[in-house]
Amino acid sequence: MITIALDVMGGDHAPREILEGARQALKTSEDLFLYLVGTEEALSAFPDHRRVEKVAAPEWVEMDEAPSEALRKKPRSSIRRAFELVKKGQAQAVVSAGNSGVTYACALFTLGRLPGVSRPAIATVLPTLKRPAVLIDAGANVDCKPNHLLQFAIMGALFAEKVLGLERPRIGLLSIGEEGGKGNFLVKRAHVLLSESPLNYVGNVEGRHIYSGEAEVIVCDGFVGNICLKVSEGVAEALGEMLKREVRRDPLAMLGFSLARRALTRFRRRTDWREYGGAPLLGVNGVVIIGHGRSDARAIRNALFTAKRFVELNLVEKLRQALDRKKSSPDLQAIS
Amino acid sequence: MITIALDVMGGDHAPREILEGARQALKTSEDLFLYLVGTEEALSAFPDHRRVEKVAAPEWVEMDEAPSEALRKKPRSSIRRAFELVKKGQAQAVVSAGNSGVTYACALFTLGRLPGVSRPAIATVLPTLKRPAVLIDAGANVDCKPNHLLQFAIMGALFAEKVLGLERPRIGLLSIGEEGGKGNFLVKRAHVLLSESPLNYVGNVEGRHIYSGEAEVIVCDGFVGNICLKVSEGVAEALGEMLKREVRRDPLAMLGFSLARRALTRFRRRTDWREYGGAPLLGVNGVVIIGHGRSDARAIRNALFTAKRFVELNLVEKLRQALDRKKSSPDLQAIS
Repeated sequence: MITIALDVMGGDHAPREILEGARQALKTSEDLFLYLVGTEEALSAFPDHRRVEKVAAPEWVEMDEAPSEALRKKPRSSIRRAFELVKKGQAQAVVSAGNSGVTYACALFTLGRLPGVSRPAIATVLPTLKRPAVLIDAGANVDCKPNHLLQFAIMGALFAEKVLGLERPRIGLLSIGEEGGKGNFLVKRAHVLLSESPLNYVGNVEGRHIYSGEAEVIVCDGFVGNICLKVSEGVAEALGEMLKREVRRDPLAMLGFSLARRALTRFRRRTDWREYGGAPLLGVNGVVIIGHGRSDARAIRNALFTAKRFVELNLVEKLRQALDRKKSSPDLQAIS
Repeated sequence: MITIALDVMGGDHAPREILEGARQALKTSEDLFLYLVGTEEALSAFPDHRRVEKVAAPEWVEMDEAPSEALRKKPRSSIRRAFELVKKGQAQAVVSAGNSGVTYACALFTLGRLPGVSRPAIATVLPTLKRPAVLIDAGANVDCKPNHLLQFAIMGALFAEKVLGLERPRIGLLSIGEEGGKGNFLVKRAHVLLSESPLNYVGNVEGRHIYSGEAEVIVCDGFVGNICLKVSEGVAEALGEMLKREVRRDPLAMLGFSLARRALTRFRRRTDWREYGGAPLLGVNGVVIIGHGRSDARAIRNALFTAKRFVELNLVEKLRQALDRKKSSPDLQAIS
């Protein structure tokens, strides 16, 4: 049995869609046990279930609250309680589609970091024309130092190997030119660190080449990473809308449009966090899955399955071991 | 008659496509006079024309040369000569699809900056679902300070008004959340400056909302801006390829595909610098149009027309006057 603490109050569509996602996951997966954490009122809507324990939390965090304030002023919030269940060893993972800054802060505060990691980071899986790729950091750390990017590369490579099953994933540094000398101050310095590391580093990767599959791990700071993801969503949505407008002009194009729309929807799903079931926060001492703020029931169900898979794969322990090995390498010791 | 200096040696497809673009532009536009600047060998391929003067330059700059080296070691390069023609008052604008870092450095070195501008920036026009938008900076300045972003906003707004004819364009700051407190260190500081300015600032804009048209001026540093553009190209290209793959599975989808492909090509063109005829470098004391490195003849022709339009609109003078007026505003004086 895998036990997961689910923050019922987090997300734009909480608690309704979150609870519906829980119901769907429980139905599909026989070896899943859920702690549903939320207000008594929210939880009262969920029927009793032998694989569910309801945990009452009188407070919850809004989507736009500042992490430091939320931590200080709401010690009895649902997200905080969810993490305490993991800390106490009752649950094996936390899933939340709530305020990701607060989830990040709670994870650091309650679970702490793995040895050798100074900045845990969000890893997002992207579809490409070749193998899938991991973009790290997708939004946890907006201001980074070069050695943080090196740590993201190490964690991203492990994730690509262990979870996506990719052999010897190529690591690329997101920049504005392919030559190593190109980029901003941060990227130029990170390029030197990555080049000197024992990682399978293939150099700079341009924005154009993320989706053509030039690398399986795309390393960037969380500000740039988050903008990349959002721009990708925006382009796909605008493209869909422009196609629709083209077709509206021409009644004969309707057959074509229905075909294009199916393909577009498929692509849009593949660039959408919802379909990938949430993104793991790597580098903390526990399994934490961050769902998209716009998560619906399907997204929550997928996020629960992702969390379950992480626990089954014993990923935190594997990351800890690998980071230990990396730490003993003289190249990485120098910069930690 | 409008006179433009064209760097024949700049771009991945130089000199052939550059010269062909020149030929097309001369044919279409009767009041265009071109200085074609390049090696004697390259220029010998171009037939004599009463509205063309060939200017021999024995050296040229490669696409991947470092700007400082290129400036020092190649004083007789084609791009340098092109700028000298403007400096001497013979030509009214420079167009180059060559190494954009070198073009930027030559522009600063030869023409200098407009009063009040510390960092000239590249403005790129993007299609959106509503009015077109200007993204500034699209790649000239990879490491910025908050007041540079304020200057980009001022120049971008003037460009949107004068060139795109947009009334009271809304200025958005590209960030990872809509609330003003969200973003990296640079963006949070720039948000304060923009909020205090007399500009029509609408706050943070997320990557998703660039193409939905939430603002007509998108302000960001050149690293983030360039990545946005390249990611957009990449998503559009990958989408096209994925659609193609979907259709290949199903012969009946061919009619639909041909319709979708047309629409996709149209969209791809609209996100491609080539169709917009190059991007102006704003804030230098002269008209400078930077073409996409992959420019073909059509792109060069469009870049020449863009340069011509800038000269006809007297845009540099208008920018100078507007910057003077802005400078006299107490709000902006404080931060310049």
